[in-house]
Amino acid sequence: MKIKVAIVFCVVAAMTFCSSGVIQAREYEYTPTPLDFRYIFGPGKPVLTVSPGDRVRLWCEDAAQGRVKSTADTFMVAVAPVWPDVNPQTGPIYVKGAEPGDTLVLKIVDIEPSVEEAWSCFVPHFGFLTPTRFTDMLTPMLPEYTWMYPIDKYKGTVKFISRLGPEKYQAEIPMHPFLGTLGTAPADREVFHSLTPYFHGGNMDCVETKIGTTVYLPVNVPGALWSTGDVHLAQGDGEACGVAVESAAWVTIDVLPLIKGKKVATPRFEDDEYIMSAGSARPMDDAMRIAYVDMVNWLVADYGFDKWDAYQLCSQVALMRVGNVVDTYYTMVIKFPKKYLPD
Amino acid sequence: MKIKVAIVFCVVAAMTFCSSGVIQAREYEYTPTPLDFRYIFGPGKPVLTVSPGDRVRLWCEDAAQGRVKSTADTFMVAVAPVWPDVNPQTGPIYVKGAEPGDTLVLKIVDIEPSVEEAWSCFVPHFGFLTPTRFTDMLTPMLPEYTWMYPIDKYKGTVKFISRLGPEKYQAEIPMHPFLGTLGTAPADREVFHSLTPYFHGGNMDCVETKIGTTVYLPVNVPGALWSTGDVHLAQGDGEACGVAVESAAWVTIDVLPLIKGKKVATPRFEDDEYIMSAGSARPMDDAMRIAYVDMVNWLVADYGFDKWDAYQLCSQVALMRVGNVVDTYYTMVIKFPKKYLPD
Amino acid sequence: MKIKVAIVFCVVAAMTFCSSGVIQAREYEYTPTPLDFRYIFGPGKPVLTVSPGDRVRLWCEDAAQGRVKSTADTFMVAVAPVWPDVNPQTGPIYVKGAEPGDTLVLKIVDIEPSVEEAWSCFVPHFGFLTPTRFTDMLTPMLPEYTWMYPIDKYKGTVKFISRLGPEKYQAEIPMHPFLGTLGTAPADREVFHSLTPYFHGGNMDCVETKIGTTVYLPVNVPGALWSTGDVHLAQGDGEACGVAVESAAWVTIDVLPLIKGKKVATPRFEDDEYIMSAGSARPMDDAMRIAYVDMVNWLVADYGFDKWDAYQLCSQVALMRVGNVVDTYYTMVIKFPKKYLPD
Amino acid sequence: MKIKVAIVFCVVAAMTFCSSGVIQAREYEYTPTPLDFRYIFGPGKPVLTVSPGDRVRLWCEDAAQGRVKSTADTFMVAVAPVWPDVNPQTGPIYVKGAEPGDTLVLKIVDIEPSVEEAWSCFVPHFGFLTPTRFTDMLTPMLPEYTWMYPIDKYKGTVKFISRLGPEKYQAEIPMHPFLGTLGTAPADREVFHSLTPYFHGGNMDCVETKIGTTVYLPVNVPGALWSTGDVHLAQGDGEACGVAVESAAWVTIDVLPLIKGKKVATPRFEDDEYIMSAGSARPMDDAMRIAYVDMVNWLVADYGFDKWDAYQLCSQVALMRVGNVVDTYYTMVIKFPKKYLPD
Repeated sequence: MKIKVAIVFCVVAAMTFCSSGVIQAREYEYTPTPLDFRYIFGPGKPVLTVSPGDRVRLWCEDAAQGRVKSTADTFMVAVAPVWPDVNPQTGPIYVKGAEPGDTLVLKIVDIEPSVEEAWSCFVPHFGFLTPTRFTDMLTPMLPEYTWMYPIDKYKGTVKFISRLGPEKYQAEIPMHPFLGTLGTAPADREVFHSLTPYFHGGNMDCVETKIGTTVYLPVNVPGALWSTGDVHLAQGDGEACGVAVESAAWVTIDVLPLIKGKKVATPRFEDDEYIMSAGSARPMDDAMRIAYVDMVNWLVADYGFDKWDAYQLCSQVALMRVGNVVDTYYTMVIKFPKKYLPD
Repeated sequence: MKIKVAIVFCVVAAMTFCSSGVIQAREYEYTPTPLDFRYIFGPGKPVLTVSPGDRVRLWCEDAAQGRVKSTADTFMVAVAPVWPDVNPQTGPIYVKGAEPGDTLVLKIVDIEPSVEEAWSCFVPHFGFLTPTRFTDMLTPMLPEYTWMYPIDKYKGTVKFISRLGPEKYQAEIPMHPFLGTLGTAPADREVFHSLTPYFHGGNMDCVETKIGTTVYLPVNVPGALWSTGDVHLAQGDGEACGVAVESAAWVTIDVLPLIKGKKVATPRFEDDEYIMSAGSARPMDDAMRIAYVDMVNWLVADYGFDKWDAYQLCSQVALMRVGNVVDTYYTMVIKFPKKYLPD
Repeated sequence: MKIKVAIVFCVVAAMTFCSSGVIQAREYEYTPTPLDFRYIFGPGKPVLTVSPGDRVRLWCEDAAQGRVKSTADTFMVAVAPVWPDVNPQTGPIYVKGAEPGDTLVLKIVDIEPSVEEAWSCFVPHFGFLTPTRFTDMLTPMLPEYTWMYPIDKYKGTVKFISRLGPEKYQAEIPMHPFLGTLGTAPADREVFHSLTPYFHGGNMDCVETKIGTTVYLPVNVPGALWSTGDVHLAQGDGEACGVAVESAAWVTIDVLPLIKGKKVATPRFEDDEYIMSAGSARPMDDAMRIAYVDMVNWLVADYGFDKWDAYQLCSQVALMRVGNVVDTYYTMVIKFPKKYLPD
Repeated sequence: MKIKVAIVFCVVAAMTFCSSGVIQAREYEYTPTPLDFRYIFGPGKPVLTVSPGDRVRLWCEDAAQGRVKSTADTFMVAVAPVWPDVNPQTGPIYVKGAEPGDTLVLKIVDIEPSVEEAWSCFVPHFGFLTPTRFTDMLTPMLPEYTWMYPIDKYKGTVKFISRLGPEKYQAEIPMHPFLGTLGTAPADREVFHSLTPYFHGGNMDCVETKIGTTVYLPVNVPGALWSTGDVHLAQGDGEACGVAVESAAWVTIDVLPLIKGKKVATPRFEDDEYIMSAGSARPMDDAMRIAYVDMVNWLVADYGFDKWDAYQLCSQVALMRVGNVVDTYYTMVIKFPKKYLPD
């Protein structure tokens, strides 16, 4: 089994230029054993120590530790017995020089599924359209089903197959792999389960943390102690049933230079087209408020906008993306088109 | 003044084929006088009576009755004095044969701005990031400002100009005109102000009610008594400050054949790529729930999907669009890609 | 049948002093026929015209028009067929001299059940702990049951009897009759179903609109056009299943002198111990915010409190009462003890 | 200074009967030094190890570590500098025999203020009627003020004094001391700041955790590791400004026999009149749902009620108490009158 392979530190490429133009001192590859996973965001013994400029290639197990292998593997059968060991994270990774008050900058370089078949399922009392632990009711929850999604790497698709059989319905869905979970150790000595998104990032389940996106995260403890996992190969906005198209994967991330002495209030993303802010709270209204206010503050602080202009302009050109509406907190992302940034 | 022109019924094209392939009996053009506007969705004397298959070309005044003419025209100065006569609607239009329990089908054929300059502004105690009448607080509201947006019809853009002057910042924004408001008379004898979106449609402020979109609305009273207005030339998701890029416009709509004996539970849209359901409620969570459940029901009832397959598939491929997060109710729209519909 | 009795205007007591010390010109008694009920708050032909100082004695049918007569009468069987004719209101009553911008002042003098048996039931897709039209889900709703509550007028109790029979469980509950619904015609030309609470009052379902309470309501249209109904003999906070202990009743209300030129922003109540503000919105947070801000404003405007003192003092001594958490909007009531009012 | 006194274990009364009738093996008194406080709920080295049947007398510092000494000590001046060391907890206390899956049972025997003056204040971006970190806005927050509340132990009151001076307004408020914070180590390896209420209890700020109340808390880790603090001498429902009448105090608690093998889903309380369930979530709706469902489950599991009877009966007789509407999560408490429990 691949996950039995022990930790291997490979210095693959010293002193080459990484994708982001900075000098990349080293490239690390890390394969956790099952005992190495963690299920929280918080302090802990680092599994890797890297420097800004380094590249890491991490193997990330899927959200159910690879325990869902067929449609017979429902959540209660395959996953619940190991609760709360759900949504394993690869990490924490210590970044040299990262101190509380800084911002960690990570660029997602590659996400490569390492299995033949992805999966999704319904989870008891979890998801947006069923009574849950929070929106609790006296009425029945959803039934339990599991769907397997064969991966066609050549086509770049996963296949949805009806739970009643492929003759009932099937469809090929283009893969758009992204990291469901990416975060640092939280502030104020708090420790959150890996299923929780919050100001530290975490389980944001937002399609924007994809290949090519740069992610800005707050550094709350020395070394930042970030981790990642929960790779999704496809997902609609909101991850409404609570589970996306889940897969183990190799994830390559460049650790870019830290932003010293300035800490993002909430996670920020950037790709070729957009700068983005993510807010995590309940209800969705507050998640959106956190993201929106952060974007206005960003435009004012870093791009010289007048505050009221920024609010007005965002009202006309900014887009919203619903991350998740199922986790402990929901995540909303505002996207401001870079073409409107001043030169 | 153009809006002083009286009602003119022009039978422009009898017995031609309209854009949707059905026989189009007649084309009506209607220019309301200021006295003809209405500020509610509810019963009332129709300003036009049409048949399925007809085309209407309607002049729609902007949301402030054309009273915002410069940046000096703040809401309190220019608009508040005529409250509650805000967000004028062109209508109601009676559709022959429409009976309670049917679905009205309208296709938006064209939206053509009829002014040189659009506008936006901040409104006291209104918008997403200020204390409001509902999310009431003891702290100050936003200041008041107005922005004028010159229209360049050749380029298809509106120009954002900083409230501190163009030398501070300006930007051209591509126009994507859409109807902020489109709805029928509500059910259960209720009458809502034209600023309210709900199950009857109304002030949904969703960018998807654009040229080319077909809109399905519930018929709650004989004739459906629909109306429209509140044209926006551009808007970000959520219309966060409460006001989009507002304009008067000529709006052309085809009244398609009714769906008899089957009433949509909430507004539905359709364009070349997506079928869509809109939910209006507070908080955003419930607006999204209404839309999402309606989409699953739609996929099951009209496309033969298994209910749990539909939920699972939507979770992986459906997109969400935030309509407004500022009105009496918020509006969320779910978009299901038509390429996943069975043949 | 008593409700077949036609309208009777009885001038019972001219020029006597009413309970509130003002001169009471007249006392009216009014028994609506089934055709006289209305199911909205809005404009309409008054059933009575009274003056400040008058007393009215109104017969109010129960929320289901008296159609629930045994536990076999579930909502779908007994009530749904007449939808939307649910929650009948007695009114509207025109108050001479009431003009938009005034405040109507009503004192609840008596509520006397006019039946032998009250009832409650579960309503499909209605209530706090089941999927509803707003908090919509893909999971099943509650089952349907009806409970009958025999009234013991001597003891002043109603009897809860288990749906599995009195041998399973029964209990006597003290009656504390109150008006579930009391409101004026809404502002801005809107018309709401009688099941809706909002700024005009309406279906607040708050235990505080009981015998002895004075109610302050906004006058939005000439004559105020108020109505009442939906008498509850008992109810827990929140009316969580959606239906209280429902009864027809004779309701006696004194129309007190109008407050001219000053309109309450949201309903206010007053009894011997408390002044109270009611807010209606969703989620509960916003309902509470509306009520709370109104209370602070009230303390500042009428009692000379410093605004920040008022907020601080309320934070330490004000109580909250949950009205309903099931209607179109929820209702929350803040109660400020009168003993802390300055002399 | 009293808080400099080191830990003292006093075996005051061995083998006497405690207030709850069980054999009380020992009575401990514990005065933490400033270094002993903790600001989280989570695992950690116990400051005391006790057995069921023991009584503890704990000194609890106020929520600001005693740093607010006059009205000049605003939050930013006196408290913010030590952030996140806010809301100090006395604990954790290890209970012998407590294992994950059990329920810890604590009876609040006494709360005795240990200062002459209590205090309250406004906290920047905190409270119900100001923009906050979650309900974020672009508008200004509340101003900062502090109020001192002299304690009259003889009368049993605290005195509110206007920030503009006693001649403006003052009032005596009866003390009803309660524990703002009481909780165990959370489940699933999570660690929460002491300002957070959740399923483990914590900062519920509910007036019902008062003298005489028995509190049932989940045991998630060996020994339960409970702690308490944040004593309030008075508070309105909701603690709306974010801060109650805060005081250091001596708190006496009896550790009652554990409920083995049965873990409460959410905190439960009991006093002479009511059994109560507390839910903590956002928005208030979900906090109330958690509490309400737990109460119905309690009535069914422990008192033999039919589930639908329990929901119906609660709807008619259960009361709601708003704990806090300001913390990370809000807390709502449902109160079921014990007189309706079957014999």
